Amino acid sequence: MPPCFVLLTDFGLADPYVGQLRGVLHQLAPGCGCIDLSHGVPHFRVETGALYLAASVPYLPFHAICLAVVDPGVGSQRAILCLRMGHRTFIAPDNGLLCLAAAQHGNGDARVWRLRPGIVSGNPSATFHARDIMAPAAAKLATGTPPEALGEEMPTAAMHSPVWIRPETTDSGLVARILHVDHFGNCILNIPSAADMPAHEMRHKGRRTPLVAVDHYAALPTGHIGLLCGSQGYWEIAANRDSAATLLDLHTGDSVTFPDVK
Amino acid sequence: MPPCFVLLTDFGLADPYVGQLRGVLHQLAPGCGCIDLSHGVPHFRVETGALYLAASVPYLPFHAICLAVVDPGVGSQRAILCLRMGHRTFIAPDNGLLCLAAAQHGNGDARVWRLRPGIVSGNPSATFHARDIMAPAAAKLATGTPPEALGEEMPTAAMHSPVWIRPETTDSGLVARILHVDHFGNCILNIPSAADMPAHEMRHKGRRTPLVAVDHYAALPTGHIGLLCGSQGYWEIAANRDSAATLLDLHTGDSVTFPDVK
Amino acid sequence: MPPCFVLLTDFGLADPYVGQLRGVLHQLAPGCGCIDLSHGVPHFRVETGALYLAASVPYLPFHAICLAVVDPGVGSQRAILCLRMGHRTFIAPDNGLLCLAAAQHGNGDARVWRLRPGIVSGNPSATFHARDIMAPAAAKLATGTPPEALGEEMPTAAMHSPVWIRPETTDSGLVARILHVDHFGNCILNIPSAADMPAHEMRHKGRRTPLVAVDHYAALPTGHIGLLCGSQGYWEIAANRDSAATLLDLHTGDSVTFPDVK
Repeated sequence: MPPCFVLLTDFGLADPYVGQLRGVLHQLAPGCGCIDLSHGVPHFRVETGALYLAASVPYLPFHAICLAVVDPGVGSQRAILCLRMGHRTFIAPDNGLLCLAAAQHGNGDARVWRLRPGIVSGNPSATFHARDIMAPAAAKLATGTPPEALGEEMPTAAMHSPVWIRPETTDSGLVARILHVDHFGNCILNIPSAADMPAHEMRHKGRRTPLVAVDHYAALPTGHIGLLCGSQGYWEIAANRDSAATLLDLHTGDSVTFPDVK
Repeated sequence: MPPCFVLLTDFGLADPYVGQLRGVLHQLAPGCGCIDLSHGVPHFRVETGALYLAASVPYLPFHAICLAVVDPGVGSQRAILCLRMGHRTFIAPDNGLLCLAAAQHGNGDARVWRLRPGIVSGNPSATFHARDIMAPAAAKLATGTPPEALGEEMPTAAMHSPVWIRPETTDSGLVARILHVDHFGNCILNIPSAADMPAHEMRHKGRRTPLVAVDHYAALPTGHIGLLCGSQGYWEIAANRDSAATLLDLHTGDSVTFPDVK
Repeated sequence: MPPCFVLLTDFGLADPYVGQLRGVLHQLAPGCGCIDLSHGVPHFRVETGALYLAASVPYLPFHAICLAVVDPGVGSQRAILCLRMGHRTFIAPDNGLLCLAAAQHGNGDARVWRLRPGIVSGNPSATFHARDIMAPAAAKLATGTPPEALGEEMPTAAMHSPVWIRPETTDSGLVARILHVDHFGNCILNIPSAADMPAHEMRHKGRRTPLVAVDHYAALPTGHIGLLCGSQGYWEIAANRDSAATLLDLHTGDSVTFPDVK
């Protein structure tokens, strides 16, 4: 089976930028499929992009070559990484975008390379490395070039690791971070589903909200806020046919505290 | 020719949900194409999704396997249906989403099955049946499993049939429903193009609007409201280079009355 | 290598219109790829669509067949063109949508045909020529019909050529037009990168803005406005991690003057 490209960016779909990426990949590696994971990561919100990746790894084709670009530092000195986990490969800037995926799905066999400058011929633009450097690198991988030919291996522990990679245990309880507010207003936390979450209350901006534990949205009584293991592999704050984010004034990047989780 | 998946949802494109659907389909049925019909159905607006499907059937590949998901009842007891019309197959919750397509394009040969719980191995999430149940079922159909292996056949007349499936003839005239306000502000009604519509006036929220019959938008005099057989197979209320919805304060779900159609 | 369709429209992705286009192309020319360049051209903004095309030509597959539809005159008498440059082919209404691409990338070998009415069998809708006329024409080209079988050749100079095709040299300086404000707030001008732009100031709506020349966004000091050769092949007005459009109240279609470029 030929590799399949997977694209994740904060470019949006209004501009021609994603189309140009697709064009370059099709031209350089024409037999491969191409799946858009999302281009709707909010501008420069690396934590949301990191969540999308970590949540999606189990659903990506086994031979996926994923190009992940949320890159406020484009043109500066930040490195570009190539991460391999199983048969799947990820190319992304070294700014934390890959950290949750590696933490959740690395299973001890993850390997990472720092791409060398100059791997691409021609004169790449200074503002669109995704199209001019990362896409050609992805196409090289798709057509048989091994990662070691594109850069130097480095320890996975040397990848940039931001504070939001996991919740923090404090005297006031577990302090978690909202990584993403989805289209339905569900608020996804940086707490993997595998963690126990015996929480009956959440604190946020001085407000206490009682929580109901449920396993799907329709099970939530109207007007109540639920805590559930959503489909994304992380705990979520949700409401039934309503937006928990709007009801509670929650936003991506906010911290919330669960006082009874210690 | 291999089957081609067609996706219709209300998930939007900002979240990774559609990308995960695509990933699962690519993994389980790699040789198939995949076309996005739309992911912009407004949240939980089943009638708009039903219109999109009915309007698009003639333009879908002959061997389309369409996954249609506008599913406010996910996780509850609503059934999942598999509808076959000609060579095309549709998988959707039993909430009216398939009713217009079956009514417009069934031609007496439509057949429908109710999917059995447990057709998919593993442990599906309670909140994302599209990815965890419907997509694997679609992949099974694409790779040769017949519908009868996935569920029990039922009469098409037993499918959920909402009130908006057709306009209502009343003493005040024909009462129609706006199924969709498109990107250009055109308002699409639940009246198939095949129906005669000798209407010169529309009533809505106490206001009377004279209507001009035209066959394309540019033929409408500026400032006038047109009634035309649009490209979607249903009658539309439209303006020329302007939004009829904004001009007349029309919204999806609104009822409008045509007093001279009886 | 089979041809690859490339789609550019102002249809947005909420409605099923783009999905219907994709369905028709897949049905009529099933072996071909299909890339969405963008469907987010603002309604009827031909200059923005023209920019998207011109900026993207170098990144399109060599055998691209591009369907470009920003078409306020649909249903009226405007012609439909087929432009060939190298191995790439473009189908679009004759309203200026192709003018920048032809000017930037024509290289003297561009050829253009005016499609004959009636090339498509059946009864096309009067409101959706993209689906009912242009897509079938594109599929014919993809499956081997030569352009001369679809229409009459005409001189490229006879294509519609709008005023915004190039900036204007005046006594007050160079007057340029904003063709597009992108997702990040960068304002793209109708000045190709190949032009010298020794500008230190921009005037717009009575305001003078000093400009810093940089080569990537992160090089811009906070609070300053930059003039740079962006990745799209045209000069851009930009800010660092901020929206130049919002800071300076710039909009697509606005004229800006560079007094020191004469």
